[in-house]
Amino acid sequence: MPIYKAPVEDMSFLLNDVFQIDRYDNLPGFSDASADVREAILSEAAKLAEEVLQPLNRAGDIEGCTRHDDGSVATPKGFKEAFRQVAEGGWLGLSSPTEYGGQGLPVTLMQAVTEFQSAANMAFSMYGGLTMGATAALIVHGKPDQKKMFVPKMVAGEWTGTMNLTEPQCGTDLGLLRTKATKQADGSYKISGTKIFISSGEHDLTDNIIHLVLARIEGAPSGIKGVSLFVVPKVLVNADGSLGERNGVTCGSIEHKMGIHGNSTCVMNFDNATGWLIGEENRGMQGMFVMMNEARLGVAVQGLGQSEVAYQNAVAYARDRLQGRSLTGPKAPDKPADPIIVHPDIRRTLLTIRAFNEAARAMVIWTALKSDVAHRSSDPKDREAADDHMGLMTPVMKGFLTDTGFANAVQAQQVYGGHGYIAEQGMEQFVRDSRIAMIYEGANGIQALDLVGRKLPRDGGRAVMSFFSEVMAFAKDHGAEEAMKPYVGPLSTALGHLQQATTWLMQNALAKPDNAGAAATDYLHLFGFVTLGYMWARMAKVALDKIAGNGATPYLTTKLVTGRFFMERMLPETHVRLARIQSGCATTMELAAEAF
Amino acid sequence: MPIYKAPVEDMSFLLNDVFQIDRYDNLPGFSDASADVREAILSEAAKLAEEVLQPLNRAGDIEGCTRHDDGSVATPKGFKEAFRQVAEGGWLGLSSPTEYGGQGLPVTLMQAVTEFQSAANMAFSMYGGLTMGATAALIVHGKPDQKKMFVPKMVAGEWTGTMNLTEPQCGTDLGLLRTKATKQADGSYKISGTKIFISSGEHDLTDNIIHLVLARIEGAPSGIKGVSLFVVPKVLVNADGSLGERNGVTCGSIEHKMGIHGNSTCVMNFDNATGWLIGEENRGMQGMFVMMNEARLGVAVQGLGQSEVAYQNAVAYARDRLQGRSLTGPKAPDKPADPIIVHPDIRRTLLTIRAFNEAARAMVIWTALKSDVAHRSSDPKDREAADDHMGLMTPVMKGFLTDTGFANAVQAQQVYGGHGYIAEQGMEQFVRDSRIAMIYEGANGIQALDLVGRKLPRDGGRAVMSFFSEVMAFAKDHGAEEAMKPYVGPLSTALGHLQQATTWLMQNALAKPDNAGAAATDYLHLFGFVTLGYMWARMAKVALDKIAGNGATPYLTTKLVTGRFFMERMLPETHVRLARIQSGCATTMELAAEAF
Repeated sequence: MPIYKAPVEDMSFLLNDVFQIDRYDNLPGFSDASADVREAILSEAAKLAEEVLQPLNRAGDIEGCTRHDDGSVATPKGFKEAFRQVAEGGWLGLSSPTEYGGQGLPVTLMQAVTEFQSAANMAFSMYGGLTMGATAALIVHGKPDQKKMFVPKMVAGEWTGTMNLTEPQCGTDLGLLRTKATKQADGSYKISGTKIFISSGEHDLTDNIIHLVLARIEGAPSGIKGVSLFVVPKVLVNADGSLGERNGVTCGSIEHKMGIHGNSTCVMNFDNATGWLIGEENRGMQGMFVMMNEARLGVAVQGLGQSEVAYQNAVAYARDRLQGRSLTGPKAPDKPADPIIVHPDIRRTLLTIRAFNEAARAMVIWTALKSDVAHRSSDPKDREAADDHMGLMTPVMKGFLTDTGFANAVQAQQVYGGHGYIAEQGMEQFVRDSRIAMIYEGANGIQALDLVGRKLPRDGGRAVMSFFSEVMAFAKDHGAEEAMKPYVGPLSTALGHLQQATTWLMQNALAKPDNAGAAATDYLHLFGFVTLGYMWARMAKVALDKIAGNGATPYLTTKLVTGRFFMERMLPETHVRLARIQSGCATTMELAAEAF
Repeated sequence: MPIYKAPVEDMSFLLNDVFQIDRYDNLPGFSDASADVREAILSEAAKLAEEVLQPLNRAGDIEGCTRHDDGSVATPKGFKEAFRQVAEGGWLGLSSPTEYGGQGLPVTLMQAVTEFQSAANMAFSMYGGLTMGATAALIVHGKPDQKKMFVPKMVAGEWTGTMNLTEPQCGTDLGLLRTKATKQADGSYKISGTKIFISSGEHDLTDNIIHLVLARIEGAPSGIKGVSLFVVPKVLVNADGSLGERNGVTCGSIEHKMGIHGNSTCVMNFDNATGWLIGEENRGMQGMFVMMNEARLGVAVQGLGQSEVAYQNAVAYARDRLQGRSLTGPKAPDKPADPIIVHPDIRRTLLTIRAFNEAARAMVIWTALKSDVAHRSSDPKDREAADDHMGLMTPVMKGFLTDTGFANAVQAQQVYGGHGYIAEQGMEQFVRDSRIAMIYEGANGIQALDLVGRKLPRDGGRAVMSFFSEVMAFAKDHGAEEAMKPYVGPLSTALGHLQQATTWLMQNALAKPDNAGAAATDYLHLFGFVTLGYMWARMAKVALDKIAGNGATPYLTTKLVTGRFFMERMLPETHVRLARIQSGCATTMELAAEAF
């Protein structure tokens, strides 16, 4: 059976030492999250993930979800009880506003908890994750009575939420959507249409499900400018808050898919279902983007979580499995063979995953802090800078952390040899589960286009220039320190590549947009590598300072070695990414469609 | 439903134009494979793959294999009839010696057919593939009566074969194996032990299954030098060739695995089963290597085959799926959206796969021709050179073609967006099926060690030096031709990287073997890229000559564009591979096992 141990020590190092979350004590909710509160929360979250969620992961994959003839859907055994435990523990409302019953704690802390849950049981964690996204959209764009009716129940985990975007003919291109909304005399709407790929669309975890649905009001303009957002509860809610009649929304079927079998991915049929407009008519994408940005960060964290749990299992196997002898002579002469962790190629694999995980975790915490600043700071300049950061880093994190998270799950599976291919070991589930994160909430190719086409040029490149300045300032401040040279040197080279790529895009993409399209994915990965490189340099600096202050610990020493591995072995990838970008789009666009 | 069209035109281009197989007419069997015979065989093989095997692929995945309580195993519906068709068509004996009922045609042709079958239905093709491997081992190392008893039936596909190597405690490290062989008075052996992961171990396709089994004769030395090879038929064969009693070998269970569900992967229990020694006592690895080298090339071709079928489906979807508009304005203004093949990022994905497939196919045919020369030439120098090539390229092909084949299946799945994650579309099956090819017949990390540790230094580096000379000679001959510059320039740069890496290994690995281990996987990939680059340069040269002679065709023009894409976008990867290798092993080896 797979194992999982939540990386509490690493998370505390990031919160306390690298990003010094105590500096943000002036932000609402932060003073409630003092060091001992954080420690208690992380340790409780770890327990929940390790003891409740992880043990359900493989069983959930095997059993999957079952749709009954009446359209009801049963989740795997144990999910209902576990969800109740999550809800009653207040985990869904950890960072939600206190006025809706949340605890108002930093999103940063919530993201830490999200990693543990995504690692322990990705399919399960989606029920709560989508609820939080839907809640966020309601809080930002909902009318007061809508918020009052739905948000407290969702924060409490009594009801869950969904996002209903995709239709058979439209995924990325939501302008093509056909689901229809007809205004009624009482101000409500009748919604009809079919949505597909709806995660957590129907289940037995809670008494009600609050669907947020994109639809086109009759007579609305065609395309994306005629799309509105509605709230459509599975069960209508009476004025007193009690549950009323069943609404006209049903699960038509559940998809047979590669992984995340524990989550019910539904075809949802809306048949004159009653819904209410959220925000303004034809401005549905605004509300949807609140959910999507929230969801994209959550998906990025799934990439990290799956990479982490896959890593831990690969390490355990590599320490345990006896096979062959070290190239430099037996290391366990008393045993029939050495554990395979003696082999350089196994170590290379493990360190590649670990060096990603630790820096990706730093990137998540760093960006989550910016999210807190963007939403809670009283200083408009701070808010603007934090919002710039969020806009820029969201596609990078979603694309890079999920591409790499999946690749790492595959590499971790490889450590098991033939045993990795066998379902019982659980490694192939990590591969199948993590695969979806590259696809949903905007396939990674779309993230890359969002980055080069929108986030990069926005406000004259203000966000990216600010990032470059920050990294350059760090390099300048610490580049001369002897112990920092193995980190700052490679980081500066890689940053140079990213700057060259950015300049190339500025010079070549405006006149020829296909140059941006052909460069997009490589640019996103280049950006991801440089950002992780910067995270490593910052972590190394803190580790060196702590060692200088209080002496070395195994944790800090390992941190420095892992960071060097990243610099020596992984960061050089920026070179090939730059070369690809600079090769331009001509060859890529040359063939006619029929020639492929 | 997924589609598949065997790449006959591309195969003919390689056989006829690039490698000019007619030049080998002096080799036994080659004159029987004249141009029109080859064309007929390829077209019949294509029909079989497209019309018989491919339609069974998805159904076979869903149904899988079933073990009954009596230990018998049922293959998916239709497999038995299809196998009979393959056997009766003589496909299993296409390149087997005529004295055993084979057709004696070139292995080169056989490998072409193997690609079609692996692409159409990988799980099915393994029943025949393993039979051919077992047959090869019997032909080389079997005693005359063993060959007479088993080989003709196996060549005819009346019986199948297996390889029984792995045990629970030993995969890579076969020296740890425990299966026991006890010599009997009549010269036979009683074999007892448990083997796992035995592909095609039990099934209902044929009346008998010929197991080749590694076991340790009582009293034999420990380790790999005490391992012998035995033939153990499922049903004992009477002197007159008729089937006799059931032997003591049974399927204990079938594995639940990630993919290739249509192939029965068995736990095989040997309980005083009667077997006969193949080759000499304690020299079992020799016979096993005949099978394994055969099988490794077959597995490499699986990587290519899955990449090809995934590519074809991704192209069909990209031409069909309407979503969004081209960055340069609508390309299908009469439709609600443009087909996604207009988008540069989709084209980048498709060309990345295609540029691999065509060069990998060339590498397979090139190496298969060497295999024919190595086995059939009367010139010892030719045989030696061809054998050098085979030894060197076998691990490169197994490792590089399966790593990349899997990565390509993942990329092709990505083109489908959310639909790629849904089982019905068939794309996720390609990912699950192709994944095993990176693992079995020696996990790819082992291939990399075989390359750097054995194949590279062998005979003073004769094989690798000969490869370098060949590529340098090509570059010298054609580097000045204007039209060849986009191919020869990047190839020369990449070759330089490979030569630097090779020199680095020579200087640093002898004193410190961990430097080889830490470099191995990157070196294998670097080698793979350079080889595919060389294949592209050769294909480009031939395409240019044909265009100069008879004018351009869409096929030839596409070939040149695809080759340029490889040179511009893919070959620069050699740079980062070299950087990783040259970073050495120090950081990789620094941590204690407990620190991971």
